[in-house]
Amino acid sequence: MPPARVALRDVSLASYWRSSCSWRVRVALAYHQVPFTYVAVNLLENEQQDVSGMAQVPRLDWSDASGTRHTLTQSLAIIELIDEAGMSALPTAGRPSLLPTSPVTRARAREIAEIINSGTQPLQNLNHIKAIKGVSEGVDGRAIGGAAIVKGLASAERLAAANHDARFCVGSHTSIADLCVVPQLNNARRFDVDLTPYPRLRAVEEHSLTLPFFRAAHPEVQPDAKKSV
Amino acid sequence: MPPARVALRDVSLASYWRSSCSWRVRVALAYHQVPFTYVAVNLLENEQQDVSGMAQVPRLDWSDASGTRHTLTQSLAIIELIDEAGMSALPTAGRPSLLPTSPVTRARAREIAEIINSGTQPLQNLNHIKAIKGVSEGVDGRAIGGAAIVKGLASAERLAAANHDARFCVGSHTSIADLCVVPQLNNARRFDVDLTPYPRLRAVEEHSLTLPFFRAAHPEVQPDAKKSV
Repeated sequence: MPPARVALRDVSLASYWRSSCSWRVRVALAYHQVPFTYVAVNLLENEQQDVSGMAQVPRLDWSDASGTRHTLTQSLAIIELIDEAGMSALPTAGRPSLLPTSPVTRARAREIAEIINSGTQPLQNLNHIKAIKGVSEGVDGRAIGGAAIVKGLASAERLAAANHDARFCVGSHTSIADLCVVPQLNNARRFDVDLTPYPRLRAVEEHSLTLPFFRAAHPEVQPDAKKSV
Repeated sequence: MPPARVALRDVSLASYWRSSCSWRVRVALAYHQVPFTYVAVNLLENEQQDVSGMAQVPRLDWSDASGTRHTLTQSLAIIELIDEAGMSALPTAGRPSLLPTSPVTRARAREIAEIINSGTQPLQNLNHIKAIKGVSEGVDGRAIGGAAIVKGLASAERLAAANHDARFCVGSHTSIADLCVVPQLNNARRFDVDLTPYPRLRAVEEHSLTLPFFRAAHPEVQPDAKKSV
């Protein structure tokens, strides 16, 4: 049974320009040409007040076909929803799915996405490093975050290196894996991680950043971008 | 375009009885009645030698219809694959998908799964806490892990409380969300987290543990289970 059709109307995205998880979702929205309102959330200012979890980024808000309003967090869940909407709205004219059609390739795309999403980013996240420092001031948060990034990128590199096309992590198109890898490489540079051992991930990044949907989603061109923080 | 059909043959699962991520995958295999060989991997013994990443758990190995062997890590990617295989193999006789049919409910199931998978479990993972202690011996790993669990469970509880049926995180069936929540509650107890504030998650757990596929996947009945570690 094919999934039910998805309508995304009056979309808004709560985003922070530097958040790598927000960046992933911005690419998916641009890829499927979904119009949306950008709601800038300053993570540094809002962190303390966020008892409701509503200042979390990324967060997608939209109306369905009946006008009911919905809210969703977690970048990969949001990307899967946007992709399902993109596929059901434009079955012939749109771009290929961000989830490849071949079962093994689709699984590999989700695997690489999760290596970044659950195996890497949470361990180098600013709030987590602050939490560690909160219980132990002397701890080197950058060392912990950097080690997590090195381990995650090594796993992703090994899988991407098995692909036949160096421009993409899997298959012959942009996938959910590329949406996770490119922002993570940016984070890696902020942690001064040496990217020499990851030539395939860098090739994916180089190609991706030539594509209009990656360029539109880049942190530096967001409305809330600051040149230094 | 519906996804291509998936065949899972000669399946083996690399698993560690206490690993909550392995537990999630064991439930999915039992749910879709996929026969598999259990390959016990002792995380405590293998951690140092795992340069190839091949001692990672959970890891699924299988042959496709043409006999080609495949390997996949990352619990949520594995569960999505098993579910796609279950749905394509048994379109009428099998159980409902672990990914609900309604787009919004499916997105909510993935959201809750990710709150646990990327927002909670990695931050209380044994290896991560060891890594923190490696750079700062005096740090209280249990406090860091416990705080991450409290934050994650609170988010999941808020979403589960909006469901009409207290037996499930979303909808009227077991979903990928329940597969993540139940093992996480077990981890929470190991961190001495007070579960009083999460009545809906505990109701999901109570019901889930009456179901045969959750019982078959329980850590205590795995071949490598030890009564004390």
